[in-house]
Amino acid sequence: MIRHTVAFTLNHSADSAEESAFMNEARALTAIPGVTKFEILRQVSPKCDYRFGISMEFVDQAELDAYAAHPMHTEFVEKHWIPNVSDFQEIDYITL
Amino acid sequence: MIRHTVAFTLNHSADSAEESAFMNEARALTAIPGVTKFEILRQVSPKCDYRFGISMEFVDQAELDAYAAHPMHTEFVEKHWIPNVSDFQEIDYITL
Repeated sequence: MIRHTVAFTLNHSADSAEESAFMNEARALTAIPGVTKFEILRQVSPKCDYRFGISMEFVDQAELDAYAAHPMHTEFVEKHWIPNVSDFQEIDYITL
Repeated sequence: MIRHTVAFTLNHSADSAEESAFMNEARALTAIPGVTKFEILRQVSPKCDYRFGISMEFVDQAELDAYAAHPMHTEFVEKHWIPNVSDFQEIDYITL
């Protein structure tokens, strides 16, 4: 199992229509083959500047690589991620 | 549910005895009341500099606050976290 996560902040104000629209587009990523345990999250620690997170799990790195290369993902990155995300940190975990 | 995570890097070389000893001390945190789904993780994304992670879940923020204030946690931070961890980022998530 590999858990693919990204913590991020949007260019938009909290609870804006743009924020809501972005989350709806992000939610569609769950349809890409290999994605399990898909979650859209709110970051709540005052010790962290990111405001949101997305987490999903794949069977292995090959499945994650296939997701990253999938046209639905690359189109999402181009059309929605890059124009709307101001800062982010990708973190991928496997159990130790 | 609140998922408390921390991505971190140790002062020690990979697969060293010090690394192994630190992970054993960290694993003992699972005995603190309120901790569920405790995981020690390896960070594997080349787009992220942190090398490890710890993740756990609590029923709510009050349970997480109680964990943070628990003597077993504060002693772990003082005796093991501060001397061994070179860099870290706390990230806490709730589902959106």
